Amino acid sequence: MSDEFQFTQHSHRRYNPLTKSWVLCSPHRTQRPWQGAQESANAPALPEYDPKCYLCPGNTRANGETNPAYKTTYAFPNDFPAVKADQPEFKEDEESAKGLLRVTGVRGQCHVICFSPAHNLTIAEMSEQDILPVVKQWIKCYEDMAKVDYINHVQIFENKGSAMGCSNPHPHGQMWCTEDVPEEPAKEIKAMAEYRQQNNACLLCDYAKLETTTQGKPRVVCENDSFACVVPFWAVWPFETMVVSKRHVTSVSKLDDVQQKDLANILRRIACRYDNLFQCSFPYSMGIHQAPVDGQDHNGDTHLHIHFYPPLLRSATVKKFLVGFEMMGEPQRDLTPEQAAERLRSCSEVHYKKQQKL
Amino acid sequence: MSDEFQFTQHSHRRYNPLTKSWVLCSPHRTQRPWQGAQESANAPALPEYDPKCYLCPGNTRANGETNPAYKTTYAFPNDFPAVKADQPEFKEDEESAKGLLRVTGVRGQCHVICFSPAHNLTIAEMSEQDILPVVKQWIKCYEDMAKVDYINHVQIFENKGSAMGCSNPHPHGQMWCTEDVPEEPAKEIKAMAEYRQQNNACLLCDYAKLETTTQGKPRVVCENDSFACVVPFWAVWPFETMVVSKRHVTSVSKLDDVQQKDLANILRRIACRYDNLFQCSFPYSMGIHQAPVDGQDHNGDTHLHIHFYPPLLRSATVKKFLVGFEMMGEPQRDLTPEQAAERLRSCSEVHYKKQQKL
Ligand SMILES: [Zn+2]
Ligand SMILES: [Zn+2]
Repeated sequence: MSDEFQFTQHSHRRYNPLTKSWVLCSPHRTQRPWQGAQESANAPALPEYDPKCYLCPGNTRANGETNPAYKTTYAFPNDFPAVKADQPEFKEDEESAKGLLRVTGVRGQCHVICFSPAHNLTIAEMSEQDILPVVKQWIKCYEDMAKVDYINHVQIFENKGSAMGCSNPHPHGQMWCTEDVPEEPAKEIKAMAEYRQQNNACLLCDYAKLETTTQGKPRVVCENDSFACVVPFWAVWPFETMVVSKRHVTSVSKLDDVQQKDLANILRRIACRYDNLFQCSFPYSMGIHQAPVDGQDHNGDTHLHIHFYPPLLRSATVKKFLVGFEMMGEPQRDLTPEQAAERLRSCSEVHYKKQQKL
Repeated sequence: MSDEFQFTQHSHRRYNPLTKSWVLCSPHRTQRPWQGAQESANAPALPEYDPKCYLCPGNTRANGETNPAYKTTYAFPNDFPAVKADQPEFKEDEESAKGLLRVTGVRGQCHVICFSPAHNLTIAEMSEQDILPVVKQWIKCYEDMAKVDYINHVQIFENKGSAMGCSNPHPHGQMWCTEDVPEEPAKEIKAMAEYRQQNNACLLCDYAKLETTTQGKPRVVCENDSFACVVPFWAVWPFETMVVSKRHVTSVSKLDDVQQKDLANILRRIACRYDNLFQCSFPYSMGIHQAPVDGQDHNGDTHLHIHFYPPLLRSATVKKFLVGFEMMGEPQRDLTPEQAAERLRSCSEVHYKKQQKL
């Protein structure tokens, strides 16, 4: 064992400065026999309109409401919300306050955001022109929710694919708005505030600059003037990426016209590379982290970024599990983030279905 | 909305004092249409010995080694370990030290622990007498690893079922031993140290007492003289449980003969209740949290407990997903912990396969 330490050969831990937590990386294991789950491969082609889909234009939902004949995007309140606007006020009792049984009430709103009237499209196959209205819808939703007095945080996300528990392929995301800032953004805000205090700079401004100026850009997948898409140095999921604004922007609401177009551009490109990686409709959870809408100034402790957490490991049918050591100990990955970025960089930005048509 | 706030009706957040994090609870959603995944139902009956299983007694493993004809348990080094004893020393460089690309090397060992020579058994169907050697094997492994100078933490865990990425049904667990204390136990240790400082008491001693003396014991599933099995007040998974020692014990190594038997007893009973809940071999990740083996005195900041994290939601084939808001925001559950405990309490401690034989 007189070799030098190599990140592609030897176990190491990487630190996530955004959440102040560690990830175990075991790159030598990329050669071990497969242990992930086998998912069924690609579904048959979908119709552009499905009369039974509760998200398609003109269809009636479970609660009797009818979707309009929308042409771009459509947002409406979730029929089965995790949080509601109307519920009795919670009064903390003594037992709760003592610390072992702490509890608070949570009011909020949940919304569904359709990305396109076409049942059979996803961000990966939509054009940048068609994704731009999605960005604008997010902005409108975020700004609307900011006006609601009991809402202090807006979490926009998308679950894509049955591997992510999403039963309806119609392209759509969700928005859960709550009284409290949830755990993950709260951790990030705390870490970013501490970084600013220590370095008099923004953690993600510094990180975006570091990744886009490092020689060879080993973790950058793609970029444009406004955004970089990187496999974070501390990524947990095999092909996890983060889309981060190059300039200091705290929320979608602060994006100018060029940045909005650039966001549509980079979203299409990373989603398309994902689909091309294993020639399948690539599943993921995607979520936007940005400033809470709690009336406070978050210029110092937030920076707009989007996380993509995809569960696939080495093919359309082999999934990565976060179980065992990862639940009881800490997240663990085999492939290094640099190897993952290299794989994603080698994918085309023309969707494989369109390539086959050529 | 003049009703009173009810935990079974209204959204609330519950605080996990062990990890200092929050969980969102949306009990009104237990009536919504199902959104989990449909897994294939029960597999056909397995043979007691499988000539192709790499864990069965007498069989040869991929690396050419042959398992002994073991009669109770058998532990051996994992052929594809996530961490290894032998690797070059890592030297932190300047860039890493600056904070955005922090990394450390990790040495360690990974072991497999077979629970029984019988290919077709699980803890749920084993007798207490047959589980006792598993407890004793854990004690031996923990003590052996404590003697290795570069190992400071021992994480014992079991992934049961293909839903947890476990491809081999032969009853077995794993042990990953590392230089560093992983994230989850590190968080718990920190929280327990703070609790002790503030209350001059052990968090889990206090919690075990609170749960077993609260009128009606709403979150207790089962108990014996030495251990209580509870659905924690802050449980994330629908049927998550924690087995906690009633007396202050920091590791398996400190259990006396009676406590060892009581641990075998409570493990059998909760595993059996799990199988009976949906009449299937119930999948879970199970893990033991106890004192690190770093040579420090952890009497003040650790307390032996075992986590069970099962992914099933409402039947043998409907799985709970931790995606979307749960990845981007915070964990969320619909069923309250009290409702889950009630369901588990109503299950028999006689395994359903044995009931059918009567
Ligand atoms: Zn973030
Ligand atoms: Zn624990």
